[in-house]
Parts: sequence; structure tokens; C-alpha cells
Amino acid sequence: MESEDHRKKIEVCFSPYLFSLYKEEFDIIVVIDVLRATSAICAAFQNGVKELIPVSTIEEARDYQKKGFLVGAERKGQIVDGFDFGNSPYSYMIPEVKNQTVVLSTTNGTKSINIAKEAGQVVIGALSNLDALNEWLVLQNKNVLCLCSGWQNKFNLEDTICAGAILDHMLATGNYHSEEDSSIAAKYLFLSAKDNILGYLKASSHRRRLKNLNLNEDIKFCLTPNTAPVIPVLKGDRLIAVKSTVAI
Amino acid sequence: MESEDHRKKIEVCFSPYLFSLYKEEFDIIVVIDVLRATSAICAAFQNGVKELIPVSTIEEARDYQKKGFLVGAERKGQIVDGFDFGNSPYSYMIPEVKNQTVVLSTTNGTKSINIAKEAGQVVIGALSNLDALNEWLVLQNKNVLCLCSGWQNKFNLEDTICAGAILDHMLATGNYHSEEDSSIAAKYLFLSAKDNILGYLKASSHRRRLKNLNLNEDIKFCLTPNTAPVIPVLKGDRLIAVKSTVAI
Repeated sequence: MESEDHRKKIEVCFSPYLFSLYKEEFDIIVVIDVLRATSAICAAFQNGVKELIPVSTIEEARDYQKKGFLVGAERKGQIVDGFDFGNSPYSYMIPEVKNQTVVLSTTNGTKSINIAKEAGQVVIGALSNLDALNEWLVLQNKNVLCLCSGWQNKFNLEDTICAGAILDHMLATGNYHSEEDSSIAAKYLFLSAKDNILGYLKASSHRRRLKNLNLNEDIKFCLTPNTAPVIPVLKGDRLIAVKSTVAI
Repeated sequence: MESEDHRKKIEVCFSPYLFSLYKEEFDIIVVIDVLRATSAICAAFQNGVKELIPVSTIEEARDYQKKGFLVGAERKGQIVDGFDFGNSPYSYMIPEVKNQTVVLSTTNGTKSINIAKEAGQVVIGALSNLDALNEWLVLQNKNVLCLCSGWQNKFNLEDTICAGAILDHMLATGNYHSEEDSSIAAKYLFLSAKDNILGYLKASSHRRRLKNLNLNEDIKFCLTPNTAPVIPVLKGDRLIAVKSTVAI
């Protein structure tokens, strides 16, 4: 009944834990971890990082450190002992990272990247690069899944709102459609939140948890759209930034 | 830091697939499958069914049929060949079911019940019994998880909106609190939808799918609050109806 529909698909998956239910039909996977991994990755490229290698485990991160790389590792919102930085975007706003290859392991974000890369082209999404990413995605004209990293495999609001913002833009072009209720809910939540995302998230447990860690400056940065108009895509085992006019 | 909070917890889990992430801390599990299993179960008790035995598989349903029970079985929105009825609430509005024990297997709903019963007291939730259920839950004063049955393990809007309605009521008593972003999102989605739930769900894929099966009358019934003020709870292997003033 829908065979005449030649529009591309864009959907939202709330958690890596649910990814196996979605992954078969997509060309591009937008990995989203607004607080804070994907926001930090965008900040890193905006500040001149050349390449970024996402790794899942602390052990892999240590191996890279032994080889002399700049390595970030975050668990439970904190920098892991012995590493150069965690996943604060501000960590990457220093001259030392310019033109460097950086390695990063975070609780949720880098795990999502490593799960998603088997299913399609990975691109990094955050509110930080929202408009540039949307421009790039429209140009690709492919089936897109927004994969929210969530919190310990559960749904979180900030990733869902970011996914909803992407979906809202893509649907408005008329060239995309969504079937899943998760996608429709993400769009509704974005439309409710968009005029005051920080205020909206005041009710969020994750935000409260981060507030306890004195990360308010990070949160404000991560929830501010378009501070870092970069398109980090995965090529092999590492992220590089492409221009928003580059087709893959 | 939250040790002074003596309020009970109420949370929302979007899918049975995510249940293992939530189940350890709850006393009561509200199983929700608005379209249509839990709405049909409420209708059944409202129309005089004495007991209802939920079974996961068609094989179990056939075994009960051989023993002479009235047996309903639904898969993909349709009555399974050879069974007395599926999960349309209207199936249960007939004199033949009065004072009978009925067996039911549905795609999502009865599976959720069987998953949930290991974790706590199961009670059936739907928009059909919303106010009565809320009254009963407030009386229990225990930790509550609303388990949405979803669609093929994915999030769906109608179950989430129903869960959000329960959450909104419970939080308003001041005796409950929520921590999870899934719970906060469910409440937001309910508040957006509550003035026109049917209209809100026009964007829902599940609703579209059911519309293709000519189930519009069922959908209108299932989305109408408080048509069946019953409290179906699981005792052993079967559901019975208790009064909203009965503590468990």
C-alpha cells in the first residue's frame, strides 16, 4: 500500500539497546550523545582536531595512551584517572589538540558509534552541529536512523530532542517520511522543547545527575545549537570532518 | 542525596524489551496494551467475565481450547484461525462470556503480562479503566512501574500516553516521584495529547496499520477513557477483577 512512496526514510531509535530492532534498513546512522560525547566531538573538530578515534573500553584507551596519543576517557561523568581529559567540550578548546589525532572512550557515546558502524555510515549528531548536519543529510538523500545513546541503555530526553530536531527538519523538506512511533514522539518532544531546551530539561534526571557533578557550563554549551558547524563521519576506525556539501 | 525522599516511585518503561533495565525496584507492574489487549481485558471484566487466563503462545491457547475453554487469540491484528475471538473489546460484549473463564493470547499484551509477573503484582492498565486504576494505585501506596507493551518490542504512542496519564495523576498526589527520562517524556506526551487523543494518534504508524484492518470502531473505543472501571489483577496464572478500594 505504501509502495508508491519514493521518499527516503528517517527514524529515531531511543537507545543502543533497541538498535537491533531498527538497523537493517538504513544507510546513514546519526549517533547522538548530547551530554556530552557527541557535543565534545563536534567541539574538537571545530577547534582543529584532525582525527578522533572512538574506542569502547578503557583498556583500548590505555593502549593508545601508551603509544603516545592524546587520550580522553570518561565514566560516570568523570575523567578516568590517568587520562588527559574526559568528555567536556571545553577540554578540546585548547591549542594542544590542533591538528592532532585524539582517542576518546565515553560511557555511552563511543559505544553507540561502535555498535552503529556495522549497519551504515556513521555521522556524529549533536545540537552543536544541528544545522550543518541537516544540510549534509538532505544532500545525501539516503535512509537515515538517528541513534540516541541514552543513559545506561535507557531513553533520555536530550538525545531524543536532538533527534526530533533533525527529523523535523528532514520531514519539512518533503523528501523524507517516518513510520515509527518513536520518531513521531521525538518530533513532538522537540517541538515542545525547542523554545527553551535548557528549561525543558530541568525535569530530566540526567540533567540533575550532571548538575550534581558541577557541569552546568558544559550543559549550557551542549544544549546551545550550532556552536560547531562540523560534520564528523567515521572512515575506517576514526572520525574525520567533512564539509556539509560533500556527498558520501 | 535523595535518602530523605520517602515518596514512592512511579516510572514508565516503553517496551518489554527494555524491562530488564527497570524491573528490580517495583512492587506493582501496570501492564498496558491500549490497542487492544488490555482494553479488551477491561471490557471483558466490565461485561461479566469471571476470570481471564493470559497465555503467551498459540500452542497454550489451543491446549485450553481442547479442554473446552472460550479462547481468544490474536496475531498481527487478526483473529487466529480456529479461535473464538481476537482482542477486539467488542468480542467480549456478548452474553456468552458472562461468569466464564476466558483464555487470551495476543501479540504484545499477554507476553507483557507473563514477563511482568516475575517482578511484581501485575495489574491491567488501559484508558478504559484509567480513573479506577489510578484510585486503586493511590490506595496501594507502593512503587509502580508502567510497562508499555509497545509494538514488536518498539515504543508506541498510545501505550506511552496511557502511562503518562497514570503518572500525571500519581505525581499530582504528591506521594510519588519519577526519576527516569522515559517517565518525564510519557507525561509530556500525555499532556500534549490529552485533549484529543484520537487526533493526536492520527500521526501514529500503529493507528495507520490498524486503520488498514478496518478497526476504527475498536480504536475509538480503546481511546475513550473510563468505559470499564475495573481493576484486573493477576492472581496465580489468571486475572480477576478487584474493587478499587481493595489493597493487595
